[in-house]
Amino acid sequence: MAIEVRSLAWHGKGLHLIDQTALPREIVRLDVTDVDTLIDAIRRLAVRGAPALGASGAFGVAIAMLQAEREGWSEDTLRDAVSRIRDARPTAVNLAGGVDRVLPLVPKGVAAVVAEAEAVVREDVAANKAIGANGADWILAHVERRPLRVLTHCNTGSLATAGWGTALGIIRELHERGVLEVVYADETRPLLQGSRLTAWELDQEGIPHFVQPDGAAASTILRGLVDVAVIGADRIAANGDTANKIGSVGVALACADAGIPFVVAAPQTTFDPATPHGDAIEIEERPESEVLEWGGVRVAPEGSRAFNPAFDVTPARLINAIVSERGVTEPRT
Amino acid sequence: MAIEVRSLAWHGKGLHLIDQTALPREIVRLDVTDVDTLIDAIRRLAVRGAPALGASGAFGVAIAMLQAEREGWSEDTLRDAVSRIRDARPTAVNLAGGVDRVLPLVPKGVAAVVAEAEAVVREDVAANKAIGANGADWILAHVERRPLRVLTHCNTGSLATAGWGTALGIIRELHERGVLEVVYADETRPLLQGSRLTAWELDQEGIPHFVQPDGAAASTILRGLVDVAVIGADRIAANGDTANKIGSVGVALACADAGIPFVVAAPQTTFDPATPHGDAIEIEERPESEVLEWGGVRVAPEGSRAFNPAFDVTPARLINAIVSERGVTEPRT
Repeated sequence: MAIEVRSLAWHGKGLHLIDQTALPREIVRLDVTDVDTLIDAIRRLAVRGAPALGASGAFGVAIAMLQAEREGWSEDTLRDAVSRIRDARPTAVNLAGGVDRVLPLVPKGVAAVVAEAEAVVREDVAANKAIGANGADWILAHVERRPLRVLTHCNTGSLATAGWGTALGIIRELHERGVLEVVYADETRPLLQGSRLTAWELDQEGIPHFVQPDGAAASTILRGLVDVAVIGADRIAANGDTANKIGSVGVALACADAGIPFVVAAPQTTFDPATPHGDAIEIEERPESEVLEWGGVRVAPEGSRAFNPAFDVTPARLINAIVSERGVTEPRT
Repeated sequence: MAIEVRSLAWHGKGLHLIDQTALPREIVRLDVTDVDTLIDAIRRLAVRGAPALGASGAFGVAIAMLQAEREGWSEDTLRDAVSRIRDARPTAVNLAGGVDRVLPLVPKGVAAVVAEAEAVVREDVAANKAIGANGADWILAHVERRPLRVLTHCNTGSLATAGWGTALGIIRELHERGVLEVVYADETRPLLQGSRLTAWELDQEGIPHFVQPDGAAASTILRGLVDVAVIGADRIAANGDTANKIGSVGVALACADAGIPFVVAAPQTTFDPATPHGDAIEIEERPESEVLEWGGVRVAPEGSRAFNPAFDVTPARLINAIVSERGVTEPRT
C-alpha cells in the first residue's frame, strides 16, 4: 500500500515540508514558520520541483505576514522578505508565480492569502491528474509497443508538486492502465533526485524500475530499450523551449536520434509567455561543492573547480509533445 | 612540478599498480604477485583504461608463470589462469590483446614474456605521444577558435595507459603548445574516473579545468562553451563504431547537434578488425551497487534495481576523427 506523500502542508501557523534532502533514508518533516528558514529550505532543495515551489511561494507570503505581525516589521521589511522568497531560485517560474498570485490578497489578511495558497495546491493536484490522463492518451496514440518502457529524468512526482506528479503523474497513469513495463530513472546528479526521490516514489507504488547513471540514458535509448521519455519542466518559454533539470537535453537528443518521442509534462503555471525563447531563461548555477564533494567528503582534487548549472534548455525542435492540463501541443511537428 | 605517474611497473617478481580506486585521496601502491589479486584489481578497476589493461594482461601472463613455478601448477592450471586474466573484463580489446601478444613467448620463459610486456609498455607510451601530436594537429586544422575549450569524458591519461595518455595526451599536447584554455571533465559516474582521476592528472599538470556532472555535457556543448570533444576508446570495430565509457555517445550526439568535432583517440591495439560493427561488441554490465550505493552507503531505496552498463557504443556516423599513432581517419565524412 502506497504512502500518501505530500511535499508540503499548511498547519495554521506555518508550513510542514518533507525535507527531500533526507529521503529515502529518513522522512524528516520541517516546520517552517519564518522567512529565512523557508528560503534556506528552497535553496538547499529541501523543497524542490517547479509546482511545489509555486505552492511554497504562495504559502511563503503568509509566513512572511505572520512573522511581520509577530516581530512588528515595517511594510518595507515585509516587502523585502517577500521579494527574497520570490528570488530564492531563479529558473523555475512557478516560485515567482506562486508569490505573485497571492500578493493582491495581502491587504485582506493572512486567512485570505492562505486560502489562495490552498487553491494553488488544489489546482496543482487537479492539473497533475489531467496531465497524467492527457499524457497517457497521447503516448498510447503515438507509441505502438505494449507494455511500455519509459525513461524519466529527475523527480517530477508527488514530492516535486503539491501531489501526484507531472511526468511521474503520466507514468502513474500508464501503470494504473496496466500498460507500463518498466521505468528507467536517471539518477540525476549532482543531488540524485532520481535515485533518491523518483526511485522512492516508484518503489512506494510498486512500479518496476531501474536507476541508471545519467550518462547511460543516451545509450539505453539508442539500444532500443526505451519507447518514450517523459520529463517535467521548470520554465517553458513562449516558443516551447523548455528549461528542466540538467541532463534533460541529452535525453532529448538521444530520443531524436532514435526516433522515439520526447515528452514534456507541466501545468500551465510553468508556461512563461513573457520569456520568448530558451536563451532568455536564466540558468541557476549551484555550489561547486555539490559536484566536487559527496556527503561532505571531497571527491575531486582540492585544486579542481566545478561547473554546476542546475538546469539546461531543450529547444522546442527536440520536443515531440508538451502536455499540460489543457491538452497537448506538438512543437516538433 | 608534475609528479611522474605510472599506472603500472614490473618489479622483477610482480607488478606494482597504483590503486586507482583510492585516488585522489591516497596514492596506494598494490604489489601484485598472483593471478587472483590481478584479476581482482582488474575487476574492481584498481587498474583500468584500455591501454593499461593491455600491459596488465601481458605482465599478467608472467605473474601466472611465476605463480605456476612456485605452486607447481599443471599446464592446464596455468592455461586456465591465463584465460581467466584474459576474460576478466570483456569490452576492452586490449586486455585480451596483451595476453595474446606474449603467449607465444611462454615456452621461452618468464624473462622473454616480461621483455615483451615491457615492449608493450614502451610502444604504448610512444603511441600515446604520436596520438597527442596527430590529434593536436588535426584539431588545430579543423577548429578555428584560440585558445581551445575541450571537453573530455572518463580518464584517458597516464593512469589509463602505460603513460602519457590518449585523449588526455592530446589535451597535454594542446596545453604544451599554448593553445588550451580550459578542459570540461565529465565526472563520469558511477565510479567518477573523471572527477577523481582526470581532474587529478589535470591538476598535477596545472591545466585549468572544470569538473561537471555527466548530464551537463550536452548543454555545455549546446551553449557554445566547448570547441571540441576528445575521448578514448575501449574497442573500435572495423567500421569505426567505438565502445567507450558509458556517457560517450551522449557527448557525440551533442557535438553533432552543435556542429563541433567529436574526436576518438586510441592506439592501434584498441582497433579490432575482427569485430565488424558496434552491435557485435559485448557491453560489460557492472554491479548494481556501483549505482545504488555511495561509499558503501545505500542511496536508492532498498527495493530499487540498477542498470549499470560500463560502456556505450558511439556509431561511426557521429565520429569526426579517430586518431591513432598512425594518423587520423574521418569516419563521418
